[in-house]
Amino acid sequence: MELRLIIIGSSAAIPAHHRNLSGQVLQTPSSSYLIDCGEGTQFGLTDAKVRLSKIDHIFISHLHGDHIFGLFGLLSSASMQGRTKELSVFAPPGLKLLIDAFTETKSMYLNFELNIVEVDTTVYRQIFEDEHFRMYSIPLKHRIPTTGYKFVEKQKKVNIHKEAIAKYQLSFDQIKSLKSGNNANLEDGRTICSEDVCFHKYKPRSYVYVSDCVFSPEIVRFIQGVDVLFHEATYMNEEKELAQTRFHSTALQAALIAKMAGAGRLILGHFSSRYTDLQPLLDEARSVFPDASLGTDQSVFLF
Amino acid sequence: MELRLIIIGSSAAIPAHHRNLSGQVLQTPSSSYLIDCGEGTQFGLTDAKVRLSKIDHIFISHLHGDHIFGLFGLLSSASMQGRTKELSVFAPPGLKLLIDAFTETKSMYLNFELNIVEVDTTVYRQIFEDEHFRMYSIPLKHRIPTTGYKFVEKQKKVNIHKEAIAKYQLSFDQIKSLKSGNNANLEDGRTICSEDVCFHKYKPRSYVYVSDCVFSPEIVRFIQGVDVLFHEATYMNEEKELAQTRFHSTALQAALIAKMAGAGRLILGHFSSRYTDLQPLLDEARSVFPDASLGTDQSVFLF
Repeated sequence: MELRLIIIGSSAAIPAHHRNLSGQVLQTPSSSYLIDCGEGTQFGLTDAKVRLSKIDHIFISHLHGDHIFGLFGLLSSASMQGRTKELSVFAPPGLKLLIDAFTETKSMYLNFELNIVEVDTTVYRQIFEDEHFRMYSIPLKHRIPTTGYKFVEKQKKVNIHKEAIAKYQLSFDQIKSLKSGNNANLEDGRTICSEDVCFHKYKPRSYVYVSDCVFSPEIVRFIQGVDVLFHEATYMNEEKELAQTRFHSTALQAALIAKMAGAGRLILGHFSSRYTDLQPLLDEARSVFPDASLGTDQSVFLF
Repeated sequence: MELRLIIIGSSAAIPAHHRNLSGQVLQTPSSSYLIDCGEGTQFGLTDAKVRLSKIDHIFISHLHGDHIFGLFGLLSSASMQGRTKELSVFAPPGLKLLIDAFTETKSMYLNFELNIVEVDTTVYRQIFEDEHFRMYSIPLKHRIPTTGYKFVEKQKKVNIHKEAIAKYQLSFDQIKSLKSGNNANLEDGRTICSEDVCFHKYKPRSYVYVSDCVFSPEIVRFIQGVDVLFHEATYMNEEKELAQTRFHSTALQAALIAKMAGAGRLILGHFSSRYTDLQPLLDEARSVFPDASLGTDQSVFLF
C-alpha cells in the first residue's frame, strides 16, 4: 500500500499568505507519524482528515516556536478526546522542561503516558523502530540543536516463486531455508540458490525530513538514495548570504542536496513570508533537480 | 467613535465545528485590547484584519491551555514583525514561568519588553488605566485561579453649552471653573451652576468579559449596569450538574447573570464541542434575557 505524506504547514517563522507553520504527517498502512508541530497543526490535521487518535509518534526537529507551539494544544486535545494509550515524542533536549512548565501551571492535563525521547542532535543513528519502519536522526546545523529524520521501511519477508516450489518439489523445510537466504539441497544432488527463487514484493521506501539548516552537503551520506526528500527552502538563492547568516537553506541548495543524494524526488517547504508567489523557488530548484515540488499546505504526496 | 468587539474564537477546550479557541479583541479609537489567546488567535486576528502592532495590552483570564496556547506564537510573530515597544500581559500568576521556559529552550526570542502583570484573582479592583479606559479584575470561580475583566471608559471632559457662554458673557476663567464642576460668579452677582451649563458628550461605555466560571451571582455587584456583557455559556441548562462539576456555566445561567446585572446586552461564548448547532443555547438565553447574541468566530459587536 502507498505511503502518504500530507503537508500541514509550509511557512517559516510566522504564518503568511495562508501558509501555516511547520507540520506534516507521514501515513503508512499501520501508523501516522507527525513531524513537527507548529501552531495550528491540530486544525490542519482536521482539515486533512487525520485523526489525532491515529498518531502515536511525533518527531520534532528542534524547539523553535514555529515548530512546536502547536504541540501543547494537540496533546491536550488528544487527551480531551479520550486518549489513554501512550504517545511518544522524539525531540532535542528541552521539551520536558516545557511540558513540566505547562503541567505546573495546570495549563495542560494529559490522561495518557507521554513518552519524551530526547534525540542526540549530533549523531546519525537509529532512534526507533516499529513493525514496519526504522527511524534515524540526521544531525543538522541550525542556530539551536536540530535534527532531521529518516524513515526507512523495513524489508518485508521474502516471497518464493510458486513455480519454483512446483518445479523442484520443495519441502516445507527447504522453502523455509531458501526464504532465510540459505541454499537448499535437492535429493538429486542439485543445489538451489535463494536468490534464484526468492524475491521481494517491493523495494522498501524511504522518506527524509530535513528541517531548518544551513546548506550542509555533509548530510548527503546519510540520505543517499532516499525516495522522497523534504528539504527546507526558506529563501531564493539570491539571498544565500542571508540564508547562511540565519542558518537556513535556499531552494537551489535544497535541490543540490537532492541531486547529490540521488533522491527520487524533492519537496520544498518552510518558505519565508517574504514570498507571496512560490513559483520562482520551484523554478530555481528544478533548474538543478527537475523532480521538485512545492510542499504547500494540505498538499499530498504518494509514494 | 464606536467600540468594536471582535470575537476571534468561541470554542471551549478543543477546536470544533470551525470554532476556534478563546480570544477576542476590544477595539477603541486609540487601542486594541486582546482578551485571552487560545491557539490560532494570531490567525484569527489576521482574518479580522487586526494588526498585532496595534495590540499593546493582553488580558488573560486563566492559564488553561485553550486560553493561552496561542500567546507564545503571537508574541513571537509580533517580535519578528519588528515590534520594539513594550507589550503588557495581565494574567494570573504562572505566566512568567511559561515565558521563562520557552526562553530557556530558545523557542522564543522577543525584541521588545514583555511586561507581565500578575493579577490577583481573588479581588475586584482596578488593575490598569490608560488615557481612555480603566480596567478591573473580577474574581471568578473556576478550577484554577481565574479572573474576569471589566473595561470602563473614562468620563470625557465636560463640554459647556455655547449658548451659555454667549448668554452670560463667560470669561475663560469662568468657563474653566464651570468645566471643573465649580460654580461661576457673574459680575451682576448671579451664580451659574456647573450642572446647568455643562454636559457630557456621551455616556462612558463599559464591557465585561466573564470567562470560565461556575454560575456566580456574587459577581453581579461588580458588573451592575454594564453595557455589554460577555459570559461563558459552555453548556445548555439540561447539563447544569455537569457545568457545576466542571466549574462552567450554562446559557441560561449566563442570561440570569446578565438580567441580574441589568446589562445592556449579552454575548454568549466558550461553547462545548458537543454542540454543532448553537441556536438552542441562544434560545435558552433569550428566554431570560432577550438581548442575547452568539459570539461566534469573527462576529463583530459595535457599541
